[in-house]
Amino acid sequence: MNAIILSDGKVVPNLDPGDRGLAYGDGVFETLLVNKALPAWWDRHWNRLLRGTTSLGIPAPSEVAVRRACATLMKAEPGACVLKIICTRGAGGRGYRPPAAATPTVVVSTHPAPDPVGPVDLRWCQTPWAIQPRLAGIKHLNRLEQVLARAEWDDPEIFDGIVRDTEDRVVSATSANLFALVGGRWLTPRLDRCGIAGIVRGWLLDEVPEAAQADLSAVEVSHAEALFLCNAVRGILPVRRLGLREWPLHPAVTALRRKLAIANPAFVFEES
Amino acid sequence: MNAIILSDGKVVPNLDPGDRGLAYGDGVFETLLVNKALPAWWDRHWNRLLRGTTSLGIPAPSEVAVRRACATLMKAEPGACVLKIICTRGAGGRGYRPPAAATPTVVVSTHPAPDPVGPVDLRWCQTPWAIQPRLAGIKHLNRLEQVLARAEWDDPEIFDGIVRDTEDRVVSATSANLFALVGGRWLTPRLDRCGIAGIVRGWLLDEVPEAAQADLSAVEVSHAEALFLCNAVRGILPVRRLGLREWPLHPAVTALRRKLAIANPAFVFEES
Repeated sequence: MNAIILSDGKVVPNLDPGDRGLAYGDGVFETLLVNKALPAWWDRHWNRLLRGTTSLGIPAPSEVAVRRACATLMKAEPGACVLKIICTRGAGGRGYRPPAAATPTVVVSTHPAPDPVGPVDLRWCQTPWAIQPRLAGIKHLNRLEQVLARAEWDDPEIFDGIVRDTEDRVVSATSANLFALVGGRWLTPRLDRCGIAGIVRGWLLDEVPEAAQADLSAVEVSHAEALFLCNAVRGILPVRRLGLREWPLHPAVTALRRKLAIANPAFVFEES
Repeated sequence: MNAIILSDGKVVPNLDPGDRGLAYGDGVFETLLVNKALPAWWDRHWNRLLRGTTSLGIPAPSEVAVRRACATLMKAEPGACVLKIICTRGAGGRGYRPPAAATPTVVVSTHPAPDPVGPVDLRWCQTPWAIQPRLAGIKHLNRLEQVLARAEWDDPEIFDGIVRDTEDRVVSATSANLFALVGGRWLTPRLDRCGIAGIVRGWLLDEVPEAAQADLSAVEVSHAEALFLCNAVRGILPVRRLGLREWPLHPAVTALRRKLAIANPAFVFEES
């Protein structure tokens, strides 16, 4: 990966080992798909980042400085790549107490774009996610639960796992949101108790009249007419298998993928 | 702060901006009190660090290399200081998935020892801590809940705040464990749902026959005969006030402080 580190909007050579992002996961991040130096949905990502920093009481980083760092890195990536933006509260403060005047650190980095995949096979994860309304929805840096859930399997045939919360409601995959077609509606778990409110999930809830948030049990998900995953790097991914249940490719999923590709050409896909 | 960074046991000049400690809080830490280049309770701290890395599936760092880095830093601190050891899973892995062969990163740093304090005043925190048995007790790097709880007050008269979990059981202070004298026994909250199992708490449970773990409500804590906080930097701190309740200094707390100072001279205190 190539990376640029900013402190208070200025490029610095290294990460301060006293940064609160390392010490406490005291920050947020965004992962964007880039095509020909154009990041998909910059505004949606930047606005979510600001909602996260505001919620944690971290001063907003300079958008101009972050955009400049992103542009520098993207110049070296003529094709598709993934752009990651981490924003922390910066160094300092005694212990957990946030410093009165924090100076945010931003780490921008580029990574190879993932290879395209067809309909994906999923498993049920055993690691439950904790219920913490104060942090729910935010893409913050406290991600040990995701790491533990993702560490549950090695089988390369399994693309991702579906996670439930400690009260057994379905939340999402470890790295994508989940939609289930139930009675003609596209239901996605509410994320006011845990989970990350993804960018494509937000677009779908805004743009698809039959999409809605709901509480979903594992049984309801297993009995859905169709499932798909979505995130800002992969777009929409049809689900072929979850545990023992299998689904043929549903035309309603393909229709949503087409709608997404029209709204955002970064998500054009090859129809098989 | 002075810091030394180790990757796979060797000193490196800088922290990799792709380190999973920053990306996901994928690691653990220890905070030790040092007096005249002697860290208090090294073995207890090192063993807890190893329990944490084992629990997260992070390879154990080299104790020899970490001790050497600590010794180098402590040489520059002739009096008392605080030594912090962070151990992360290191850089790499695609997304949340841990790399098959991780190379741990260790960041060792020294910080000024805090000024001594007398009996302390506490508040009740509003931020609840989430219930996550898979991570409970471990001193891992996902500490946004502590940061949010500690950000609730600015009043320098308030030393720390007492936190409850999302099911309203008392857990601890934001940066110390809590003991309550109830019916002649020293009860401390069980930490199998959330919280950090502190080193002094562990010593007390091992060495004090009347100390035990229990579920404690806010009412039970408020009605206790005495309270104290404990952590590995402060030792035992008598509580003078919690919310509206006040306590005179209880001789049983002073007796425990003396016992601790005999077991570990780093915790000698001035009796007033």
